[in-house]
Amino acid sequence: MGKIIVLRLGHRVYRDRRITTHVGLVARAFGADGIILSGEHDENVIKSLKNVVEKWGGPFSISYEKNWLKIIRDWKNQGIVIHLTMYGINLPDIIEKLRELYKQNKNFLIIVGAEKVPSIIFELADYNVAIGNQPHSEVAALAVFLDWLFTGKELTKELQNAEIKIIPSSHEKKIIRKKK
Amino acid sequence: MGKIIVLRLGHRVYRDRRITTHVGLVARAFGADGIILSGEHDENVIKSLKNVVEKWGGPFSISYEKNWLKIIRDWKNQGIVIHLTMYGINLPDIIEKLRELYKQNKNFLIIVGAEKVPSIIFELADYNVAIGNQPHSEVAALAVFLDWLFTGKELTKELQNAEIKIIPSSHEKKIIRKKK
Repeated sequence: MGKIIVLRLGHRVYRDRRITTHVGLVARAFGADGIILSGEHDENVIKSLKNVVEKWGGPFSISYEKNWLKIIRDWKNQGIVIHLTMYGINLPDIIEKLRELYKQNKNFLIIVGAEKVPSIIFELADYNVAIGNQPHSEVAALAVFLDWLFTGKELTKELQNAEIKIIPSSHEKKIIRKKK
Repeated sequence: MGKIIVLRLGHRVYRDRRITTHVGLVARAFGADGIILSGEHDENVIKSLKNVVEKWGGPFSISYEKNWLKIIRDWKNQGIVIHLTMYGINLPDIIEKLRELYKQNKNFLIIVGAEKVPSIIFELADYNVAIGNQPHSEVAALAVFLDWLFTGKELTKELQNAEIKIIPSSHEKKIIRKKK
């Protein structure tokens, strides 16, 4: 299968730390292969995400790149660029096409922005995709996008080298710890 | 159909403002009927959400209630209480049951917590549901839960009395404004 990498644009340390962390956690939990962070460099977010991979398993790559334009331009030679935006084509109208590309082993770069996204992103993206044409959240948009792309299978995927694992339970918290 | 209300527990003004706002936006955009905020009272979050309803349409109710325990206990007389938590039963294993209850016009209270959720919530909830048993985000959990419950139909639902509406577009931002 192709590689799925999330590019988080325009991170601001003060304002976006928790949202960007949630974007990273969602990328991992919903089956992406990694995240590239852009905007302000924020070691805290990188550290939080690495800790989660360490404890809960991977593989999941985390990196920082200031020059997002270069990332996108390079990516266009090796895969598809998808920008999640409420202005785009609504997910139900485009998902079949995207699933087909994924089945053809195409690599996907999935861009999620912070509040203002430069208009060049709309031009460079192969697909501007809306998860409903309503204002909500890049965290939700990414989760629902990946969930539709993988037709829900990501929710039962086992990750590798986890120290902690949850035993699903109807009324309590059950975890098991493994020695690595 | 039954009513779907989201209860956001344990809001902290400084730490959670943006996450709680995203939870509210997701509740509205993914077809819930309203949100009840608990934890610290935060007029800013309420105002942001009300502004979105004003501009982008509704109906969608927004209220604050300090006594979340009372809300949950009262709700148990009029509907089903669902707590979204990574420790719960994984969504694919419980969704059919929940869709059936929804078809029977049951009201749903969907609880999403902040970092630490009191253990009484696990006991009081009729269903503790995990959106994958991995750490990620209450914003994503709520979106994916509602998307599965409504089988994706919420993404094309028209809201009422909107001032602004997006015209989905492959490469630009197109909106129309209506006079109310």
